[in-house]
Amino acid sequence: FQSLRRLVQFATVGTASAWRRRRPYLLVGMATVATSGAALALSIKRENWPELPLPAVVKSASVCSAASIGRPQHWMTDPVSETGWLCDPSNSAEPRVGMERLCMDLQGRLCRAMEELDGEARFIVDKWARPSGGGGISCVLTDGVVFERAGVNISVVHGSLSQQAVRQMNSRPDRHKLPEGKELPFCAIGISSVIHPRNPFVPTMHFNFRYFEVDDGKGGVSWWYGGGADLTPTFLDKDDATHFHRTLKAACDKHDKSLYPKYKAWCDNYFVIEHRGERRGVGGIFFDDVDSPNQPAAFAFVSSCADAIEAAYLPIVRRNMRRGYSYADRQWQLLRRGRYVEFNLVYDRGTKFGLFTKDARIESILMSLPPLARWEYCHDPDSDPVKAQLMRVLREPVDWA
Amino acid sequence: FQSLRRLVQFATVGTASAWRRRRPYLLVGMATVATSGAALALSIKRENWPELPLPAVVKSASVCSAASIGRPQHWMTDPVSETGWLCDPSNSAEPRVGMERLCMDLQGRLCRAMEELDGEARFIVDKWARPSGGGGISCVLTDGVVFERAGVNISVVHGSLSQQAVRQMNSRPDRHKLPEGKELPFCAIGISSVIHPRNPFVPTMHFNFRYFEVDDGKGGVSWWYGGGADLTPTFLDKDDATHFHRTLKAACDKHDKSLYPKYKAWCDNYFVIEHRGERRGVGGIFFDDVDSPNQPAAFAFVSSCADAIEAAYLPIVRRNMRRGYSYADRQWQLLRRGRYVEFNLVYDRGTKFGLFTKDARIESILMSLPPLARWEYCHDPDSDPVKAQLMRVLREPVDWA
Repeated sequence: FQSLRRLVQFATVGTASAWRRRRPYLLVGMATVATSGAALALSIKRENWPELPLPAVVKSASVCSAASIGRPQHWMTDPVSETGWLCDPSNSAEPRVGMERLCMDLQGRLCRAMEELDGEARFIVDKWARPSGGGGISCVLTDGVVFERAGVNISVVHGSLSQQAVRQMNSRPDRHKLPEGKELPFCAIGISSVIHPRNPFVPTMHFNFRYFEVDDGKGGVSWWYGGGADLTPTFLDKDDATHFHRTLKAACDKHDKSLYPKYKAWCDNYFVIEHRGERRGVGGIFFDDVDSPNQPAAFAFVSSCADAIEAAYLPIVRRNMRRGYSYADRQWQLLRRGRYVEFNLVYDRGTKFGLFTKDARIESILMSLPPLARWEYCHDPDSDPVKAQLMRVLREPVDWA
Repeated sequence: FQSLRRLVQFATVGTASAWRRRRPYLLVGMATVATSGAALALSIKRENWPELPLPAVVKSASVCSAASIGRPQHWMTDPVSETGWLCDPSNSAEPRVGMERLCMDLQGRLCRAMEELDGEARFIVDKWARPSGGGGISCVLTDGVVFERAGVNISVVHGSLSQQAVRQMNSRPDRHKLPEGKELPFCAIGISSVIHPRNPFVPTMHFNFRYFEVDDGKGGVSWWYGGGADLTPTFLDKDDATHFHRTLKAACDKHDKSLYPKYKAWCDNYFVIEHRGERRGVGGIFFDDVDSPNQPAAFAFVSSCADAIEAAYLPIVRRNMRRGYSYADRQWQLLRRGRYVEFNLVYDRGTKFGLFTKDARIESILMSLPPLARWEYCHDPDSDPVKAQLMRVLREPVDWA
């Protein structure tokens, strides 16, 4: 019933958005939605594209088959944007094409690698549409042997920024300010993932990479990349933390030696549970508003980070996933997951942006919450030397790389 | 170790606060803190009290014994304020005395009644001091047969309102605005409780009653009462919901027939999980800014509500606590508790006020979180008629009384 409902949502995705109202050629594309994907891609007038190209209208996977348009075999399903458009080599310099392909590639590779590690559980692939523009592909694995819950979510969203969202964006320091009181068309393409392993000795990992284009209200377009990856162990393993950080550092260093120290510190300052006086985990990298030195170089940097995810995390899973653990170890894991919930619901800008966005897909936003979490009154981790070891690095970040 | 640390905090409670700086006679009280409670009460100059009386300095329970000053036997421990002052009949018309006694009485009666219902678990009584002024008494029962976690927390806090707190208070509609950019001495006396039963057929219950006095920056004092009680079932039982609402309605009706409908609607509008489009539970009553028709009548109304708590809730516990439940029933309970966490961390004003207050006692604020909570991707309650029955009343409030 629910997937039926989602399919219906999909069919009715043509709700006019401010974004589309400005671009009448898209209506041509929508009228041909019942024809093949290739025909659709051709029927869209391209004259205006160099200025601010659009992803094609999202549509049901049933309309075009993978075989007919040759999408990469490792993608989990057809992409949100028109496959023909995404896979046309002549579009490969287009930032939106590059970003959506990056997301599809990483989702496909990572989900398949995790399925292989888990051995039993499989990802369900949930394609959804946002009534007011765009859609996404949520891949979720639940109740696995290795992964208690893993989510890898892509969203390709376009529409009009809410006033609340504009205000929240403008509240960030060092941002070129967007005009308030105006409907601002935007497009956001991103991948985000949170992996909650079952074994307390395997850390939780989160990453996300995103690309934003917003009409700047003055006829131009403001664009930037954001993203990051961070590790949240239940028990501190210095080798794991070092491996994770060094892998991300190597990805950053390929572009500029100054990036890792800056983004490592940003991560330490971002994932802070203020009311506890502690960080969520041992950090990693975090960046936002990346729009220099130029579009191709910024994209190349994000690509390097995305390509480093598997190498940064999967060896840590493989190394620890068969370790034995006690009831007490599990309880401590659940308690730390409660702290994870506190950070995500009280502080995380991405979560808050999502919860306050009209027509946002709540299930994809709150996919980051753990399957099970625990709270205990006046738990005192400092009385246990093993827990205290973790607490020390959560209170005072360490230079792992 | 931890309780030792708390005791040390207690001993160092004399940190000067803006509140105290304005009232030098309190320093006299603090200098005599090592003498007996009765002596302390007498040593405070009383000239200024009719204007804005203060609770006496908080101090360790070891300094005065219950026997020597005759505190009521059913209180869980010595109160935060000076026992002699609280128990002196000549102070009984003083709002702060009345409110702190109300809190102590309700905590004592309710905790003892719950211990009797549970049969095994006992409340731990945790007295704490806030470094910048005041303190509290947290009573927490964990891992009982009937109650998985129950917390009944009193706090008697004085100090200076943070700018953030002033702004948050001023953001409420229909409030007489406090001046921003000034240090405003305040005093808050309140009791709050969340009870998470183990059996999914016993609903979670929350209540709180609070009294505020704030220096209005113009030489006067602004005061008001707030509070409420609400029921959060995992499974809908119409008889339980009706009983709960009728009991609260009777308490309100004693004062004014217009109160229950108003406060019932306020409750329905307050406990809303916006991003889910549902309420937290079947409601109850919620009120704030109560300062009419006058101080004694406002206090009498709050007293009636407080006195109704046991009759409203305990029969529901007794009636359901021995019912059998399945694994699936428990999972649904844990999932609903996840929604409870979402409300408390994302929307609840009290929780947010607490988290952003300097020196707030996090453990007492987050005592409202359940011991265990669960999240599931795309859970569909509507496909199960029993769950759907609850969801209907969470989406569309019902007139239970």
